[in-house]
Amino acid sequence: MNRQVTTGTIYGVGLGPGDPDLISVRADRLVRTARHVAYFRKAGRPGQARRIVNDMLSPDAVEIPMEYPVTTEIPLHDPAYNACLSTFYVDCTTRLQSLAEAGEDVVVLCEGDPFFYGSFMHLYTRLNGKTPIQVVPAITGMSGAWTATGVPVTWGDDVMTVLMGTLPKDDLIRHMQAADALVIMKIGRNIDKVRDALHDSGRYNDAWLIEYATMPNQTVTPLAGAESKVTPYFSIIVVHGQGRRP
Amino acid sequence: MNRQVTTGTIYGVGLGPGDPDLISVRADRLVRTARHVAYFRKAGRPGQARRIVNDMLSPDAVEIPMEYPVTTEIPLHDPAYNACLSTFYVDCTTRLQSLAEAGEDVVVLCEGDPFFYGSFMHLYTRLNGKTPIQVVPAITGMSGAWTATGVPVTWGDDVMTVLMGTLPKDDLIRHMQAADALVIMKIGRNIDKVRDALHDSGRYNDAWLIEYATMPNQTVTPLAGAESKVTPYFSIIVVHGQGRRP
Repeated sequence: MNRQVTTGTIYGVGLGPGDPDLISVRADRLVRTARHVAYFRKAGRPGQARRIVNDMLSPDAVEIPMEYPVTTEIPLHDPAYNACLSTFYVDCTTRLQSLAEAGEDVVVLCEGDPFFYGSFMHLYTRLNGKTPIQVVPAITGMSGAWTATGVPVTWGDDVMTVLMGTLPKDDLIRHMQAADALVIMKIGRNIDKVRDALHDSGRYNDAWLIEYATMPNQTVTPLAGAESKVTPYFSIIVVHGQGRRP
Repeated sequence: MNRQVTTGTIYGVGLGPGDPDLISVRADRLVRTARHVAYFRKAGRPGQARRIVNDMLSPDAVEIPMEYPVTTEIPLHDPAYNACLSTFYVDCTTRLQSLAEAGEDVVVLCEGDPFFYGSFMHLYTRLNGKTPIQVVPAITGMSGAWTATGVPVTWGDDVMTVLMGTLPKDDLIRHMQAADALVIMKIGRNIDKVRDALHDSGRYNDAWLIEYATMPNQTVTPLAGAESKVTPYFSIIVVHGQGRRP
């Protein structure tokens, strides 16, 4: 005799920029009461999302680390990169879906905001329509970064453009010239290209480098004063807008 | 005999897109324990920021509504608009600073994220350096809006541009053509111009209109299906990016 099972829900829970005090009330509640907690990480690393909730998980929470098969070993534009990651995301999806079908809710921890350049989106598009799934938005990493600079980022009619350091240099320059306020993410090994593009677009001297925004090791430096700095992948560059202000 | 007074702190507290459950843990705590709570509103209106915290304020909180002297009666680019608002912001600043000097902390309620096109920035730049001031970032209104669409907004190398409906039509078209993902805010009476610009840039059929994101009266409509809709000032248009995804 089968008992009735109500399908569980998969929650993509945004954790914000890093400070646990900046998690939303809803996300805080979901994380603290979660029985199953899944998160992405690099093999052998604790994972940034998991680190944010270090003091929040219930002692009997079951953890589901999802370890990336590749991160920077294969170039982004090699078809093997996509194939490898695609298989990985299908495996993760299958695992979470089985839990939901067995009646369990699963909280997937997401750095920043889940729908803004997030890894969770790759699970979301595969699960949506098949399994109950809910997304909890969060404070973006860039919001943590511009707040850290102590200067408002956009005023009046300012145009703000968000750029990935992975873009070709010419694209970076074109967009840097066209916008008022700029946010540049995914910097890491692209830092030299990003610096050159900022120079060539005339924005270099107004650029700020923010590392570990909202975290205890946060740094805020004018980019021009950080010439030799090797920056982590999730550092962010901000150029503030100068729009209308009464 | 004078007693020693420790200067109070002015907190610019972001409340996020509208749902009180999406306020950060830090902002929630600051709002619930605040003795002095200031907020902007139009004359005779409750004010959106104040409405979000309806069930959160302490019964003995002292409220400081700051009523805009003008909103849409004077055109944005009329010098009288700036002069009038500038006087208003100086008056608000003086009032909050006196409280801080008397040793009181003041929480200033901010819709969305305080440093992202926020009114609080006009107080912040006048107070910074004179009075202890802290800013609590928050979930942006646009984050609430793209989450409401149920579709991730940016993937891979997508370029995202944020545009104000108050911009000239030609500027709107140019930026709409150049970016992958788009967010358009300050729509209100600019809706016809924004629609035309989306048509002319070939983005119209991919645009979504989100009204009252994360609030009980939230609506999400393809813009093409909302032809005759008159939209409130804080509705948001989103065009999703279509970038790389394994």
